[in-house]
Amino acid sequence: MSPRVVLLSGGVGGARFAHGLARVVPAERLTIVVNTGDDFTHWGLRICPDLDTVMYTLAGVADAAQGWGVAGESFATHEQIQRLGGETWFRLGDRDLATHLLRTESLAGGETLSQVTARLAEALEVGPRLLPMSDAPQPTRVVTDADGVLDFQPWLVRRRAEPLARALLYGGDGSSAPGVCEALLHADLVLLAPSNPYVSIDPILRLNGVRDALSGKVVVGVSPIVGGRAVKGPLATMLGSVEGRAVTAGAVASHYGDLLSGWVVERGDEATVEGGAVMGTETIMGREDDRRRLADETLKFAEGLQ
Amino acid sequence: MSPRVVLLSGGVGGARFAHGLARVVPAERLTIVVNTGDDFTHWGLRICPDLDTVMYTLAGVADAAQGWGVAGESFATHEQIQRLGGETWFRLGDRDLATHLLRTESLAGGETLSQVTARLAEALEVGPRLLPMSDAPQPTRVVTDADGVLDFQPWLVRRRAEPLARALLYGGDGSSAPGVCEALLHADLVLLAPSNPYVSIDPILRLNGVRDALSGKVVVGVSPIVGGRAVKGPLATMLGSVEGRAVTAGAVASHYGDLLSGWVVERGDEATVEGGAVMGTETIMGREDDRRRLADETLKFAEGLQ
Repeated sequence: MSPRVVLLSGGVGGARFAHGLARVVPAERLTIVVNTGDDFTHWGLRICPDLDTVMYTLAGVADAAQGWGVAGESFATHEQIQRLGGETWFRLGDRDLATHLLRTESLAGGETLSQVTARLAEALEVGPRLLPMSDAPQPTRVVTDADGVLDFQPWLVRRRAEPLARALLYGGDGSSAPGVCEALLHADLVLLAPSNPYVSIDPILRLNGVRDALSGKVVVGVSPIVGGRAVKGPLATMLGSVEGRAVTAGAVASHYGDLLSGWVVERGDEATVEGGAVMGTETIMGREDDRRRLADETLKFAEGLQ
Repeated sequence: MSPRVVLLSGGVGGARFAHGLARVVPAERLTIVVNTGDDFTHWGLRICPDLDTVMYTLAGVADAAQGWGVAGESFATHEQIQRLGGETWFRLGDRDLATHLLRTESLAGGETLSQVTARLAEALEVGPRLLPMSDAPQPTRVVTDADGVLDFQPWLVRRRAEPLARALLYGGDGSSAPGVCEALLHADLVLLAPSNPYVSIDPILRLNGVRDALSGKVVVGVSPIVGGRAVKGPLATMLGSVEGRAVTAGAVASHYGDLLSGWVVERGDEATVEGGAVMGTETIMGREDDRRRLADETLKFAEGLQ
């Protein structure tokens, strides 16, 4: 019998790892809980960047090169918005817009984010269960020296992760979505995707009941730092600016601390990790084969930790 | 000195006539008041079909063949909405969507429809003043024998104007937008576009203060019936089903009654009009030259009625 697996995930890296897991874990045994801390409103629409990246990747419609958005995307609406003098710092493609339109309309009509996510995922024939971490807004904000507290997406995208993040503020009521804690309580294995710990995984871990549900569980993470660099995004800089840590796979493991039963790193990064069970392998997941192999190896590694 | 002209207008026919007027009346002497009775909400967005048709036509970006929407339009969002199981009975193009997104966002932020219309029209370099008839919803609904009262766009587009309309219901608080009555009071000439009287012009005429503002004015209309047929839309059927009238240019003039100082009809339709000043000419406005000529002839005809 395949183990019941729950993956906690951010965007691109998490989506690729989820894609691999979906190839080796039966759909009914896999739940993916996705960060919604960086959700925001743009053109009046509710945008859930991580949720959509995971959904598109699992549906096989994601843009392979950039890792987010829809493959073969066009930007006619974006271009016209520009002509009309609207906000253009965040690019939304025409196909991608359909997701945001239906979600925004459904939320306005009283559906929950979980409900509309389930409906969209079903339409796109996503196999595994896809859960937003919360149905309520739980916005992550960035504390900077230079400009005070900034909303996440404007900081990340509009200002290209400047000025330096000194800390994160996790807003909202801390409620998890229906099914999140239940899935964790029933899980045989909980995986942390190779995502940014501060802005992708911690926002999930800090929700009410999540830490308790993880108590006694086998929790295995995959390092988002490879050979001293972040695969994507501002993590390398944040490790230093937020916690004064080195940019190593081990530093991220130390951040998670006792939560981890095991840590998967790029081969050669093992020495950066102090103590605990560590597996070195190839963690870059460009091709589908790499995703499946990494998922398979991670499951086997976790099995040895039970 | 050119006369101060106000045009009351619906969608395609009105837009083409407005386009001609804009070629012969200086922008600062021309105000176009557009029906908003058939506005509705689709994909959570506020859609103003007549207003946008007039705006796109005046901006020179309208699709020339169909008369509405944006030229060279694509439908990527629409196709994806279909894939995701959303509503697809009303087609919205990708460029057109930018208008609806910005409008909906602005209205949600507290702007009025007049304000956002002015901003969009300026971005598209529309010369004449473009006013929605009202900033408040004034929904036109259709009374049918078979299915009771239906919202306008679902009746017109989804059900292709079936079942038969027996009467119209004009909802809302009857308020006109700022500037509408003032423009009429200061007008030297008021024109009724070749639009559907029941669902395009009457919704404007019935607003508070509009009939009073028209008192003593020279009001000249252009017939939307040409040679016994409606140029576009369900008007031919409605003349009979709503008022038991014949499908003639004269029948529409009779509907407007004493309001009219003069009536412009297709050459050959003059005999259908009982009494009053009538001018026969070519009223089909496929090409820009036809639009300009018809506008010019209408202004000269009106001048003789002062």
